[in-house]
Amino acid sequence: MDRFLRLYCAQINSTVGDFKGNFEKIAYHIEEAKKNSADIIAFPELAITGYPPEDLLLKPAFISQNLKYLDKLKKLCSNITVIVGFVNRDFEIFNSAAIMNNEKILSVYNKQYLPNYSVFDEERYFQRGALGYIYDINGTLVGVNICEDMYYSSGPLQHQAISGGATLIINISASPYHQGKIEEREKILYTRAVDNRVNILYVNLVGGQDELVFDGNSMLVNEKGDILFRAKAFQEDFFIYDLDSEDLDSTRLQDAKYRTQRDWTRQAEGSIGVLKIVNEKNSNNIGKSITFKKTEDRYRDSIKGIEEEVFNALVLGTRDYVQKNGFKKAVLGLSGGIDSALAAVIAGFAIGFENVTGVLMPSAFSSRGSIDDSQKLAANTGLRTFIIPVTNIYEAYLDALKDSFKTRDMNITKENLQARIRGNILMALSNEHGWLLLATGNKSEISVGYCTLYGDMAGGFAPIKDVYKTMVYRVCDFINKKYGNIIPAEIIEKPPSAELKPDQTDQDTLPSYDILDNILKAYIEEDRDYQDIVKSGFDDKTVAKVINMVDFSEYKRRQGAPGIKITARAFGRDRRYPITNKYRLK
Amino acid sequence: MDRFLRLYCAQINSTVGDFKGNFEKIAYHIEEAKKNSADIIAFPELAITGYPPEDLLLKPAFISQNLKYLDKLKKLCSNITVIVGFVNRDFEIFNSAAIMNNEKILSVYNKQYLPNYSVFDEERYFQRGALGYIYDINGTLVGVNICEDMYYSSGPLQHQAISGGATLIINISASPYHQGKIEEREKILYTRAVDNRVNILYVNLVGGQDELVFDGNSMLVNEKGDILFRAKAFQEDFFIYDLDSEDLDSTRLQDAKYRTQRDWTRQAEGSIGVLKIVNEKNSNNIGKSITFKKTEDRYRDSIKGIEEEVFNALVLGTRDYVQKNGFKKAVLGLSGGIDSALAAVIAGFAIGFENVTGVLMPSAFSSRGSIDDSQKLAANTGLRTFIIPVTNIYEAYLDALKDSFKTRDMNITKENLQARIRGNILMALSNEHGWLLLATGNKSEISVGYCTLYGDMAGGFAPIKDVYKTMVYRVCDFINKKYGNIIPAEIIEKPPSAELKPDQTDQDTLPSYDILDNILKAYIEEDRDYQDIVKSGFDDKTVAKVINMVDFSEYKRRQGAPGIKITARAFGRDRRYPITNKYRLK
Repeated sequence: MDRFLRLYCAQINSTVGDFKGNFEKIAYHIEEAKKNSADIIAFPELAITGYPPEDLLLKPAFISQNLKYLDKLKKLCSNITVIVGFVNRDFEIFNSAAIMNNEKILSVYNKQYLPNYSVFDEERYFQRGALGYIYDINGTLVGVNICEDMYYSSGPLQHQAISGGATLIINISASPYHQGKIEEREKILYTRAVDNRVNILYVNLVGGQDELVFDGNSMLVNEKGDILFRAKAFQEDFFIYDLDSEDLDSTRLQDAKYRTQRDWTRQAEGSIGVLKIVNEKNSNNIGKSITFKKTEDRYRDSIKGIEEEVFNALVLGTRDYVQKNGFKKAVLGLSGGIDSALAAVIAGFAIGFENVTGVLMPSAFSSRGSIDDSQKLAANTGLRTFIIPVTNIYEAYLDALKDSFKTRDMNITKENLQARIRGNILMALSNEHGWLLLATGNKSEISVGYCTLYGDMAGGFAPIKDVYKTMVYRVCDFINKKYGNIIPAEIIEKPPSAELKPDQTDQDTLPSYDILDNILKAYIEEDRDYQDIVKSGFDDKTVAKVINMVDFSEYKRRQGAPGIKITARAFGRDRRYPITNKYRLK
Repeated sequence: MDRFLRLYCAQINSTVGDFKGNFEKIAYHIEEAKKNSADIIAFPELAITGYPPEDLLLKPAFISQNLKYLDKLKKLCSNITVIVGFVNRDFEIFNSAAIMNNEKILSVYNKQYLPNYSVFDEERYFQRGALGYIYDINGTLVGVNICEDMYYSSGPLQHQAISGGATLIINISASPYHQGKIEEREKILYTRAVDNRVNILYVNLVGGQDELVFDGNSMLVNEKGDILFRAKAFQEDFFIYDLDSEDLDSTRLQDAKYRTQRDWTRQAEGSIGVLKIVNEKNSNNIGKSITFKKTEDRYRDSIKGIEEEVFNALVLGTRDYVQKNGFKKAVLGLSGGIDSALAAVIAGFAIGFENVTGVLMPSAFSSRGSIDDSQKLAANTGLRTFIIPVTNIYEAYLDALKDSFKTRDMNITKENLQARIRGNILMALSNEHGWLLLATGNKSEISVGYCTLYGDMAGGFAPIKDVYKTMVYRVCDFINKKYGNIIPAEIIEKPPSAELKPDQTDQDTLPSYDILDNILKAYIEEDRDYQDIVKSGFDDKTVAKVINMVDFSEYKRRQGAPGIKITARAFGRDRRYPITNKYRLK
């Protein structure tokens, strides 16, 4: 029987700072891997601390705690090589992978490429690592690197494969989701595998952490770029895969160019050291190959299409925010509109509809449908609802403020006032019952400031904050198709309205959402300027108006609740904008 | 008459993105410098764009605009060498200084050390610069570098002085204020000047930008470390100073060690290039030295003590936030307590008391003093006030929520409800009249979450957000001493209370502020852990309680208004903390 290498990919959901919980998850999978006689088990980047720990990394005690748990882990590592992400301290700190076996930390790899763009701040905390070893594990040369390290064509991965002669690269990662990211990552993996004639085991984190969702999608790619196996998206998962001699040696060893390269390396041995790792007790799995290579297993992920991907990201992000912060239940305002309906459905899928309360808060300007349609949604889903009218409270404010208001007519002040009364009621329910308040605003509104600070923006978490209105419709359609029309057609079909004055619709103030969303994408995600956006065929006055609204609303967003990033550029850590800013279109 | 070099230090207040306004300020000072026959004029770091431009730097059009204005500036640069901060684009972007004369950009220096800690994110945007030239300006060798560049003993400054032989270094800077920073900066300047036997002209930005205040304090230090001249703190200023041959050549040229060093450099000429800059027309100031070296001019800054420093920082930060964001007036809730009194006085000094409205919003739990004391403050200062009782609105909420509340007794829900009614009233006034709402919470409260989200935390700006309660008292004492007891003694002497239930005081819930503030400083600013703080002599239960309150309140702070950083670590960009975080004391 041929030689083979049994890999165990542990795609876990770590929680930031939960050393004990993370340790227990890691320990569980090490036990499982041992039971299944795996040669190597790999966990995601910073699996011990959770990712990203942000300024917790500045606390010496936090680093010590992580080292203490690494030390506890090493005692579990016998007869198996364990690769796990942790924070290494060597005067300064590093984002690192420990390579352990025989109850020892045999080697540490320090991440060399530290992302410091988008949501990432790794240069704020970590020093850059330098060249490490490659590992001879049971006869196979293995290179280990971390996330960003594989994004550069002439980075550590190439060095380990081409100069070092590694036939397997293990990349441990904490790569957050956004639309298009999964494909992008697959392309990188394909390119690195093929260019360097190397197998790559990619182990990604899964789970929600504040504004980020890590989608998992860990995978094993062979040196032809084929995906041999893929873990599930948006949930914890693991897989076991036996790489045999054919996988490990075939192409590159046949290829004169690469053989020469490898021979050269062996001569120039100092350029990259090889650390030999053998199990002290004989490995008990030699010759007992179990394979998972059947075609039907290759893609365990059944997600199809961006809408399902987005919905899954929103559900996981919401569930983890609620539960990791110690909540069991959530509350939100149900206006009868599509945004609050979608937020309610996401919350229901995340923590169970029986744990979600929708509050109906009609005013004199509410349509009859705002009540009926919400109750239909509740009937379809099991969402709990109750009604608290706001009219009396509104009147009490108007009375108290009568000497301070310039006009008795309806105006923005009074629209905001109504929204803030609702925010206050919801916060009172949240305080009284310990329910997390979910804000229901979408990205289109939040971009242009079509929302009330402390009103509909109130909440601990904003599930659809990064979802454009047009995507809100698409995700609702997907939900209705997949789960049997649980969102009433009336909610989807009515013209969007804040219902804060008579006969109001969003389009009194905003361009149609099709147009708005395209301008917003160009301006926010692509950093295109006024002239350039107009050139692509939009009305110049509309573009000017939208850009000005976006710029002027920065102060509102700064005080908005966190929400799940699903686009290439979300508001939050991802877009660091000055409030005080006189830069205008021209 | 001896040769001399006339320096013009232009400590201006740039606004982020205000290219036209910044250009006009720069142009004005160039004209003044020419009229005064200066040889060199220097402006702060990124004077053209304002600092920090944050993610505006990702917009190609923003960079182009800044280059366009640099180009306009160069036409004004004849017969004077102008050094001005801008964003250089050379495939990637750099944080740079343009060295201009004869209507040309003669040279560009790209910043080499990019701060990426605390509030700084420069690695996010800029590439690191490499070795540049030094400049022979009218016979004096001058090195130019930027802010962080001078913080490293073996950095560009040393290179320019020791290897390049520069006798004058011009460091253009945008260095934000915090307590202790001014001294720290002076020590660095002293050390660099003495170690490298070099004169240093330090040109710092002044003004407020969102959470940062730049304190100015530009200065000229000679090669003995003496401060020859210092610009005013916390306001725009400029100075002209003639460095004569004695300043420029004395010490180092006498010192065998440095002479050797310089000779060596001249032999190894390739190591740092020298660019000769001469005025095309003859400089008209040869021999006409005007000096400002009289002792009484040396320290123009009259600020004494941390309290005055902090007060000035708060006033400037508030003024610039209000005015740069286009507001003329402000509003705040006046509770009769010391925090809102201080916030009102800061606002009054910033924009004039006649432009500040204090709203008194008594409830059933308000003491008589809450009204009387606030009105006394108004009488002393000219602050406008009016009264809006909240009782009827509160009753309307209780009625609407009666079926949803678990108890009729007073509890946290109802305390928060009152605070949020006040927040809603203040926001209504802000919306109706275009007044900026100032939140009045201090750092001690905000640290432990002793504040209500959307209630007393509501506001566009929070002037004393980074001021500990003990410092609130110190600053109020300073104000009363300097400005004649404008804050009534009753306000200062009463026990702090939120007045949200009968006979409430802060110390029902919190340890005394002396103890609280010391624990907070240890935990927040020094990243010390539980054990370590207990060891320094605090009660273990108190430390545990405080740390838990800080950790648990992260979600509130994330939605808080921006406010002025005055401590070594403020909340905001300066402290990037996960909300979802299970790291606990042990």
